[in-house]
Amino acid sequence: MAVLAERFEQNPLITARDLRPSREGLVIEGVLNPGVFTFDGKAWLLLRVAERPEQRAGIVSFPRIKKSGDLEVMEFRRNDPAIDLSDARYVKYNGRTYLSTISHLRLVCSDDGIHFYEPGDRSPFLFGEGELEAFGIEDCRVTFLEGAYYLTYTQVSQSGVGVGLMCTEDWQTFSRKGMILPPHNKDCALFGEKINGKYYCLHRPSGLDLGGHFIWIAASTDLIHWGGYRCIMYSREHCWDGARIGAGASPIRTEAGWLQIYHGADRDNRYCLGAVLLDLEDPTRVLARTLEPILTPEAEYERNGFFGNVVFSNGHLIRGDELTIYYGASDTVICGVRFSIAEILTELKGC
Amino acid sequence: MAVLAERFEQNPLITARDLRPSREGLVIEGVLNPGVFTFDGKAWLLLRVAERPEQRAGIVSFPRIKKSGDLEVMEFRRNDPAIDLSDARYVKYNGRTYLSTISHLRLVCSDDGIHFYEPGDRSPFLFGEGELEAFGIEDCRVTFLEGAYYLTYTQVSQSGVGVGLMCTEDWQTFSRKGMILPPHNKDCALFGEKINGKYYCLHRPSGLDLGGHFIWIAASTDLIHWGGYRCIMYSREHCWDGARIGAGASPIRTEAGWLQIYHGADRDNRYCLGAVLLDLEDPTRVLARTLEPILTPEAEYERNGFFGNVVFSNGHLIRGDELTIYYGASDTVICGVRFSIAEILTELKGC
Repeated sequence: MAVLAERFEQNPLITARDLRPSREGLVIEGVLNPGVFTFDGKAWLLLRVAERPEQRAGIVSFPRIKKSGDLEVMEFRRNDPAIDLSDARYVKYNGRTYLSTISHLRLVCSDDGIHFYEPGDRSPFLFGEGELEAFGIEDCRVTFLEGAYYLTYTQVSQSGVGVGLMCTEDWQTFSRKGMILPPHNKDCALFGEKINGKYYCLHRPSGLDLGGHFIWIAASTDLIHWGGYRCIMYSREHCWDGARIGAGASPIRTEAGWLQIYHGADRDNRYCLGAVLLDLEDPTRVLARTLEPILTPEAEYERNGFFGNVVFSNGHLIRGDELTIYYGASDTVICGVRFSIAEILTELKGC
Repeated sequence: MAVLAERFEQNPLITARDLRPSREGLVIEGVLNPGVFTFDGKAWLLLRVAERPEQRAGIVSFPRIKKSGDLEVMEFRRNDPAIDLSDARYVKYNGRTYLSTISHLRLVCSDDGIHFYEPGDRSPFLFGEGELEAFGIEDCRVTFLEGAYYLTYTQVSQSGVGVGLMCTEDWQTFSRKGMILPPHNKDCALFGEKINGKYYCLHRPSGLDLGGHFIWIAASTDLIHWGGYRCIMYSREHCWDGARIGAGASPIRTEAGWLQIYHGADRDNRYCLGAVLLDLEDPTRVLARTLEPILTPEAEYERNGFFGNVVFSNGHLIRGDELTIYYGASDTVICGVRFSIAEILTELKGC
C-alpha cells in the first residue's frame, strides 16, 4: 500500500506574485523551500526568495553581493560563445559558474497553516552577509532546540557551497555563527535534542571522483564545531533516488525511531520525497527506508516551472499524527501536503 | 632573486625497492608523501606506501579493504569498453571510480636525515580501518602538539575522501579519532600551538559547480570538532598554482608570521611547491605569497614516474635556519631538498 499524500487544494500556497521584490530593479523568480516553525501561536514559513535583475534583450544579467553589502549586477551577452545557459539555475561562462538568481530568506505567518501573510514590521529580511554568502543564502532548516531557534542554511559564493548557522529567540535579532560545514555541503538538519550528551545533524557533503551525494551524520558539543563524520545513507542506482539524496527538516521523534523525510533525485533531476527511520539511541543506524517515494512531482505546478519536476522540502509541522510538509514545487512556488505519520511508519515497517 | 633549492645529491632517498610489500601478492607501486617528525633523537618519516596486486595479462586488478579488515582484489578485463584507465591513479568503470592502488602508512628513521632504515619491531604499519578507509589512508601530516603527535591524513573510500585524525605518544599505540573534516577534503595541516585559545588547521575542501580547490582554515576547541570555516587562499588562474592548491606540513612559526609551504598544480597536473605567510595572531590573514614556486619538477625522478611532473610535500624538519623538505617525486619515490628559511622570507617580503 502506498502512502496517501493529501495535497492542499489551495496549492500553490505562495507564489512570486504574493511578494514584493527586495529592491528596485529585481524580479522575484521563485519562492521556494521554506523552513517551517511555530512561534507566537502561529505557523511560520521562512521563505527562500530567489531574485534576478530585470532581463534586457540580448543580455543575461545576474546579481551578487559585494563586500560592502551592496548588490552588484554582472552582465554577459547572450550570444557570447563562451556562455552556457543550459541549466536555468546557473550562468556558466568560460568555465566559471555563477548563480542565475540570488536568494534571501523572508518570513510569512499564518493562523490556519494555509493562508500566509507578511507580518508587517515583525519581518526582517535575511540577506547573505560576507564573502561566503556573496551569491546568497538558501533552503533554511529551522530547529527549535533548548529554547532557541537554530537556522541551518546553504551559503553560496565563488569560494564554494557550505552550511551556515544562525540563532534567534525572538525572530528580530539573529546571531550569525559562520560556516559550520565546509564545501561542498548542504541539506543540514539538526536533531531537536541531544542524544547521549551530544548534538547531531544530518548533512550532505558531495564527493569528487570518489563518493557521491549521500546523507552523512555529524556530532557536536556546542553546535558550532562538528566532527565524528559518518556516511549513513547512499543513493540507490536505478531508483528514484539514484543520483543524489539529502535530508529535509529536523528529524521527527517517534516511538519507532527518528523519522526523517528526505529528497532524492534521479539522473534526470527529478526530485521526489522519501522517508527513512533512524535508531533513537544511535541515529547513525538506519532501520528502514521507503522503497518508493512518498511524494512525486505530478501536479502541473510540480512539473512545470523555473526548474521543473521538483518537489523539495526542508520544513514541516506536526500536529498529533498529522504531518504537514511544506515544499518547493519546480523551484518556483510553495505548496503543502498532509500525511499520516502512522501510515509512513507502517510503510517503513514493510521495507 | 629566486630561492635556492638544494636537492640532496642522494635523491631519491627511498624507493619501492627499499621496502617489502605488506603482504604476499602485492607489489609496491610507489613510496611517497611522508609525514616527518623527530622522536627519540632521530628523524622519522611516516611513508605513504602505495601497493597494487601483481597484474596479470589482460586484467586490471586493484585492492580494497573489506569490513572484516581483509583485503579484497577486484578485477576487470582491460579490453572491457566500460573501463577507463586514462589516469594512472584511478580505475574508472561504468561511471564508478576506484583507486588503482591502496596506500598504508609505514615508519622509517634516520640518524642523519639522509639514510633511512626500518626500525625493526618498533614499526607498526598503519592500514585503513573501517568503511571510510576502505580504499586506504594517504599523505599523513604529523604535528607535535602539547606532548603528543597528531596525525592528520586522507581517508579514502567509496563514501568519499575526507580527513582523519589519530594520536600517539609513543608510536606504538594509536588512538583513532575518526573523520574530522567531511568530503571532499584533504591536505589538513594542524598548527603546532593554540592561537588565542583555539586550535587551528589549514585544509582543502573541494567545490562542485561553485568553488574550487582552495586553502581554507578552521578552528577547534578539542581537535576533533571543527568549525569557523574560512577560505583564505585561492588558486591563481594562468599561474603555476592555477588549478588547485593545498597546505603542506604544519605551519612554521617565524617572527614574520606563520610560514606555510603549500603545493599548487596547473591544469596539466604539474605540481610545484610555493610559500605563504600568515599573520601570527590572526592566521586567517594572508600577508604574502610567493609569485613563483620555490620547487618545480625538474630532476628526472620528478618528471617521470607513476604520475609524472609532481613534487608534493607534507613533511619537513627545521634546524635553525635550515628547512629540509621531504617530498614525493612523481608519486613514486621520496626525495629531500634544503632551503634557507630567511631566504624564503626575503622572497615573500618582495611579493
